[in-house]
Amino acid sequence: MKTSEATLIRKLLGVASKRDPSAGIILGIGDDAALFDPRKGYETLLTCDWFLEGTHFLRHLHPADAVGWKCLARAISDIAAMGGQPRCFLLSLALPDNLTGHWLRELLAGLRRATRKLNCPLAGGDLTSQAKVLINITVVGEVHAKGAVLRSGARAGDVLYVSGQLGEADLGLQRLKSKGRVGKDDPAVKKHLYPQPRLALGAWLAEHRLVTSMMDLSDGLSTDLPRLCEASRVGARIECASIPVARSASDRGGEKLTPNQALSLALHGGDDYELIFTVPPAKARHLPPVFKGTPLTPIGEITRQSELTLLGRDGRQQPLRSGGWDPFRK
Amino acid sequence: MKTSEATLIRKLLGVASKRDPSAGIILGIGDDAALFDPRKGYETLLTCDWFLEGTHFLRHLHPADAVGWKCLARAISDIAAMGGQPRCFLLSLALPDNLTGHWLRELLAGLRRATRKLNCPLAGGDLTSQAKVLINITVVGEVHAKGAVLRSGARAGDVLYVSGQLGEADLGLQRLKSKGRVGKDDPAVKKHLYPQPRLALGAWLAEHRLVTSMMDLSDGLSTDLPRLCEASRVGARIECASIPVARSASDRGGEKLTPNQALSLALHGGDDYELIFTVPPAKARHLPPVFKGTPLTPIGEITRQSELTLLGRDGRQQPLRSGGWDPFRK
Repeated sequence: MKTSEATLIRKLLGVASKRDPSAGIILGIGDDAALFDPRKGYETLLTCDWFLEGTHFLRHLHPADAVGWKCLARAISDIAAMGGQPRCFLLSLALPDNLTGHWLRELLAGLRRATRKLNCPLAGGDLTSQAKVLINITVVGEVHAKGAVLRSGARAGDVLYVSGQLGEADLGLQRLKSKGRVGKDDPAVKKHLYPQPRLALGAWLAEHRLVTSMMDLSDGLSTDLPRLCEASRVGARIECASIPVARSASDRGGEKLTPNQALSLALHGGDDYELIFTVPPAKARHLPPVFKGTPLTPIGEITRQSELTLLGRDGRQQPLRSGGWDPFRK
Repeated sequence: MKTSEATLIRKLLGVASKRDPSAGIILGIGDDAALFDPRKGYETLLTCDWFLEGTHFLRHLHPADAVGWKCLARAISDIAAMGGQPRCFLLSLALPDNLTGHWLRELLAGLRRATRKLNCPLAGGDLTSQAKVLINITVVGEVHAKGAVLRSGARAGDVLYVSGQLGEADLGLQRLKSKGRVGKDDPAVKKHLYPQPRLALGAWLAEHRLVTSMMDLSDGLSTDLPRLCEASRVGARIECASIPVARSASDRGGEKLTPNQALSLALHGGDDYELIFTVPPAKARHLPPVFKGTPLTPIGEITRQSELTLLGRDGRQQPLRSGGWDPFRK
């Protein structure tokens, strides 16, 4: 028996709010459009993100509940990167007919967990049938009027910071692929499957006006930093010795990485969803080394020249080459 | 040479606004999220729509510029159905590497025409590579606070209306598929390729509080009317003799249809993007027969019982069976 769209919509309704004034949802799923009530004194943030089987996740590798968590968490990371808070989201889902049972239930369980943990209920969506799983998420967020932090505000002399450790999610992906005995509780695997957008940090940095620019690291430092620098029309010099590499690089869970392997992951690994941001030197001294358990690490500085250079542990400089992920350059 | 994501984004920028205060876009494409400034006294409408190669369009049949027009126009039709106006949209696009040249230019030309005609500029998006063309559109609209028209307000005794002619777009699809000598100027083909969302009509009906419920016809009358009735917990009786069938059903462009063929198209054909709405009898007499060139036709009435019945030309009643398009019931 084929499952009708109506039945699937009812399943989705299990994670959806018909009405949720605390999230601004006046009218949720089930009509031609959702109705959202914007708060006075706020601007609306809008972002959308693909999450496609075969491109962004592999069905044999990624548990359905992780697909559900991650599709929303990574989209919300863009809201964190603007200094905002998520309010609600739209889900566009396309599914093969044979995944409308157990797999869909697991997906929705992961998604429901993310909606609660990240405070972002489902307001609407679109559903269709397709040979592969296709997901598109639109997140609606809010930020105090004129309080959003853009990519374009970095100035020469600003200190460049990152949150957390870099390369950990990519290490987790490699461990998952190696099919060793690592499980979901391996911290690197966990970071790859269940990323935590830095919402509290992003909002705190924006609110206290500590940062001149900010973005999230989704495609890897060496791909994303050039985007920030291009938007700000500046360059950057980063120090290899300062870059916080994956904590679990030498864990008993996987093989021990050499320092160069750990550095390469930190420079080019994607999917960390940490924040990268620039702080004027006078404000940098007010920045705590750790914010709510997340380390904040200065890794270099913004320069007037548009080059991006990497200062090696041996004191030699070299250009930073983009080695992250570009879907059109495989 | 592979086209990089950055190059494609620059192509998209040709249709995007960095900043467009008249559309509420404070910050457009190029940052982690777009920034939208909601107007005071309005609520925000949010809707998203798949438009997938092989499911919603066929690359050998549908010109790229029609794909560009239609993906936006059909999503905006959901805003019209709430009585709102579109403000801006997000485009998620996935493309095969070999379509990033001429095909993409044509797609963007059609899209750009729709953004201008329908007054809805691009505010952001996401781009990736994929074997087939995948499109997802999120439209952000606005409606006067408490002025949105829902599906759920129909009452027994209300007169049921439709705009325009029904079944015309499906007739156009059939003519396209028959590969006859019909061109883009055949009115049915034109309606299939370049649908016109009924924005002015929807806003006018909402503003003058003439309607108790409204939705757009995307999947066909026999599929969409049950949705409106279910949301309103009512039934409906429609009269075959009153249903406005495709004007061009007997045009010289295609073969002449029998009255039953034309009726079947009108009942079950999708993609018309006309409005269906309910009007209390006392207000029905204030409704003009034609609004800005678009006929408004009473086709039946809302009933207390939840059945949907069809009154044939022979005076016999039969249940209305859903024969429209459900992606999970092929």
